[in-house]
Amino acid sequence: MGKRTDAKQKMVQAAKQLIRQRGYSATAFSDVLELSGTSRGSVYFHFPGGKAQLAIEAAEAHAFEQVEIIDRAADQATSASQLVEVYLDLGRDAMAASDYARGCGVAPLITEGAAQDSAEIAETGRRAFSEMTDRLAFHFVAFGVERASARVLADAVIAGVQGAMITSRALRSPTPYDSVRTVLASHAASVSPKSTRRTRA
Amino acid sequence: MGKRTDAKQKMVQAAKQLIRQRGYSATAFSDVLELSGTSRGSVYFHFPGGKAQLAIEAAEAHAFEQVEIIDRAADQATSASQLVEVYLDLGRDAMAASDYARGCGVAPLITEGAAQDSAEIAETGRRAFSEMTDRLAFHFVAFGVERASARVLADAVIAGVQGAMITSRALRSPTPYDSVRTVLASHAASVSPKSTRRTRA
Repeated sequence: MGKRTDAKQKMVQAAKQLIRQRGYSATAFSDVLELSGTSRGSVYFHFPGGKAQLAIEAAEAHAFEQVEIIDRAADQATSASQLVEVYLDLGRDAMAASDYARGCGVAPLITEGAAQDSAEIAETGRRAFSEMTDRLAFHFVAFGVERASARVLADAVIAGVQGAMITSRALRSPTPYDSVRTVLASHAASVSPKSTRRTRA
Repeated sequence: MGKRTDAKQKMVQAAKQLIRQRGYSATAFSDVLELSGTSRGSVYFHFPGGKAQLAIEAAEAHAFEQVEIIDRAADQATSASQLVEVYLDLGRDAMAASDYARGCGVAPLITEGAAQDSAEIAETGRRAFSEMTDRLAFHFVAFGVERASARVLADAVIAGVQGAMITSRALRSPTPYDSVRTVLASHAASVSPKSTRRTRA
C-alpha cells in the first residue's frame, strides 16, 4: 500500500464523515481535500468518476463498517433480542458521542435524489441496505428465529435505526434509540425459540 | 386571501415537493419558482428570510399534513394496533404512488446539517417531530395504552416510518413498510388493553 492508496483512503474517510454530517449535495470536493489534507491533484487520479465515485466508495465503506458492527454485536449477544439491544445501544452511544451531528453514510444518496440521477449510485444504495439487512437476518436465523420472521425483524431494525438516527438528531436526545430498542427487542423475543436466553440479566 | 398569499402557498408547496424529492441543499429558489410558476419578485416579498425561511415553512406544512394524516388514520382505527397498520399503509401507498421518489419534508433539514447552521431550522425540526410523535401518543392513550408505553410506541412508529421511507426508496420496494407495520402493530397489540379489538378481520 503506497502513498497514493493512503491518500485515497483518507479521502474516502473524509467524504464519509462529511456526508454523514451534512449530506451529499453540501459536501464539496474542496471540503474533502481540506479535511483529508490531500492535494487537488489526487482527486482526478483516484476518482476519475468525480464526486459520484467518491460518494459511492464512502457509502460502501460505511456499509462495510455497519456489517462489522452487526457482527460484533452478534458476538456479544446470545439471542436475537440481545442482538437488537446491543446494536441499538452501539448506535445510540455513537450518536451521543457525535453530539447528534452524525447520521448515515448511505441515506443522503437516497434522500437527496442522487440515486435518481445515477444508476450506479442507486445500485450502491440498494446494495448497502441489502447487505446490512441480510447480515442481521443471518444472525437472527442463527439465534433460532424462523427465516421469514428474521427478514421482517431485520427490515424493521434497519428502518428503526435509520429513523432513530434522524429523530434523535432532530430532538438532540437518545430517547428514539431507546424506544426503538424496547419495541424491536420485545418483538425479537416474541419470535425467538422459547429456550433462548432473552435478557442479559 | 389575495394573489400574493396564493403565490406564497404555491411556493411553499413547491419547496416541500422538491425537498421531499432531492433534499434541502439541492433545492434552489429557481427550481421553486419554475415549479410553482411564480415570479422572482415574489421570493423576496414573501420570504425575506431567504431559502431557510422557505424551507422552514415547507417543513411546517409537511408536519401539519402528517398530523392530519395521523388523525385520519386514528378515525379509521379501533385500536392502537390498527392505527399503526393504517398509518403504515398510508405511508406505503404514498411511497409507491410517488414511484419511490418522495421522502420526508422535514428530515433533509436535519440530515443535511441545515439545523446545525441555523437555530431556527433546528427548532423547526425539533417541533415537527415532536408534534407528530405527540399526536400519535395522544391517540394511543385514547385507545387505552398506558402513557409511558404510548410514548415509546409513538417514538418507534415515527422512527420506523422515517426509516422505511429511506430503505423503501433505496430498495424500490414496499417491503420495509410491511415489515415495520408487522413489528410495530404486534408490539402495539401487546401493550393494548386486552378488551380492545386488535385486528380488522
